[in-house]
Amino acid sequence: MKKQFAVIGIGRFGSSVAKTLYHMGFEVLAIDSNESRIQELINEVTHAVQADTTDEEALKAIGIRNFDVVVVAIGQDIQASILTTLILKDLGVNTLVVKAQNDLHGKVVQKIGADKVIFPERDMGVRVAHHLISPNIIDYIELSADYSIVEIKAASRMVGKNLSELHIRAKFGCNVIAIKSADKMNIAPHAEDLIKENDILVVVGDNDHLQNFEMSFRE
Amino acid sequence: MKKQFAVIGIGRFGSSVAKTLYHMGFEVLAIDSNESRIQELINEVTHAVQADTTDEEALKAIGIRNFDVVVVAIGQDIQASILTTLILKDLGVNTLVVKAQNDLHGKVVQKIGADKVIFPERDMGVRVAHHLISPNIIDYIELSADYSIVEIKAASRMVGKNLSELHIRAKFGCNVIAIKSADKMNIAPHAEDLIKENDILVVVGDNDHLQNFEMSFRE
Ligand SMILES: Nc1ncnc2c1ncn2[C@@H]1O[C@H](COP(=O)(O)OP(=O)(O)OP(=O)(O)O)[C@@H](O)[C@H]1O
Ligand SMILES: Nc1ncnc2c1ncn2[C@@H]1O[C@H](COP(=O)(O)OP(=O)(O)OP(=O)(O)O)[C@@H](O)[C@H]1O
Ligand SMILES: [Ca+2]
Ligand SMILES: [Ca+2]
Ligand SMILES: [Ca+2]
Ligand SMILES: [Ca+2]
Repeated sequence: MKKQFAVIGIGRFGSSVAKTLYHMGFEVLAIDSNESRIQELINEVTHAVQADTTDEEALKAIGIRNFDVVVVAIGQDIQASILTTLILKDLGVNTLVVKAQNDLHGKVVQKIGADKVIFPERDMGVRVAHHLISPNIIDYIELSADYSIVEIKAASRMVGKNLSELHIRAKFGCNVIAIKSADKMNIAPHAEDLIKENDILVVVGDNDHLQNFEMSFRE
Repeated sequence: MKKQFAVIGIGRFGSSVAKTLYHMGFEVLAIDSNESRIQELINEVTHAVQADTTDEEALKAIGIRNFDVVVVAIGQDIQASILTTLILKDLGVNTLVVKAQNDLHGKVVQKIGADKVIFPERDMGVRVAHHLISPNIIDYIELSADYSIVEIKAASRMVGKNLSELHIRAKFGCNVIAIKSADKMNIAPHAEDLIKENDILVVVGDNDHLQNFEMSFRE
């Protein structure tokens, strides 16, 4: 059977989690104490109910224990977030994911038994900062403290050349692992594959090497 | 010369952007109308000043035009965000990045001239939803609507086998582009490289292929 999810607190973050899961085909129950939030989301989740989740009886009545994963995305009201987490843990919820406002909030819910604590605004701030300093870098994942994969716009000086002519491996120590063109995705690029205008290169390497590579082609 | 950044509105998102840029070695001016927010951040940015950015004279006095990139991260007060954006555009700020609360807010600031509009809570909600449905998937980038790169925990059935024995390419149509072990990162994996316990595979492929691959090794 497919996993069942409950999302408590459907602000911008919580509603995005709930909608995404629902659109991927999962059953999603959304819970918020604010009736108008419920109304806005009602067609984009399986069920949406109004309840104050600091009320243990309300959570029992909803049958919250039957859900595989419960996401607590209550924001400003840190006390409500903590109390909700405590009750859910007590009721024996299997996997409990809690959005935290700050370090202290994060530590408290972790101690209480949250399985995963997330800091959406902080994490997104870090991501956006990385994008701002390297305008050619479209997206990235950090593989470790030292290594990343980046999506990077092909510089005009690369256009018409093939991978072996650019000596990316030899000069910069990084590997091109995919080339994304308007019409196709090449996930097994060869040395003789040409780079076209508007292509995007997906490159893996040490962060310093990637930075050198990006900088040396900046126009 | 290194780029200079200003961040207006230092809530959770704005302060994370500001700190990250500062720790990467850039000059960062943080601005907020709330004095206590300024105090909290003062040691983690180059300068922090209290100002209401809906006041054009205040922005002029700060010399906001001298900054290469201005990030407007005012949240709840959508009107203040829009007015601030309008004034900054008027003053001729070079690159203007605005955090939006919802679609309408986003459309308005785009029309006014924001160079980039971001929805941190929404984007992070989508990311977290993807992580929740595939507990083995640690991180990912969407290369296109169809292709992604995922970091995936090595299943116990993979341990002790090499890449060619697992037939990942032939069976699932995806490519292992890196293997991350406790002690090292292998960014050019060969067919005979062994998978060890607690390794993480970085795999590129079509989303359906990646999902098949992840599902077929789920334990
Ligand atoms: N006790 C509670 N029970 C149920 N829902 C609650 C409770 N307290 C707050 N909420 C709901 O949690 C939701 C998120 O809270 P809030 O808007 O403060 O968070 P936020 O961090 O600003 O969210 P975001 O940044 O994602 O928009 C709101 O819709 C609010 O009604
Ligand atoms: N007119 C203004 N001038 C300067 N700063 C402002 C103005 N209006 C609001 N701010 C500041 O913007 C910051 C962010 O606003 P707010 O906390 O409402 O956003 P938010 O979306 O909930 O933020 P986050 O989710 O990132 O914590 C606050 O610190 C607030 O003081
Ligand atoms: Ca927020
Ligand atoms: Ca990662
Ligand atoms: Ca908020
Ligand atoms: Ca992307």
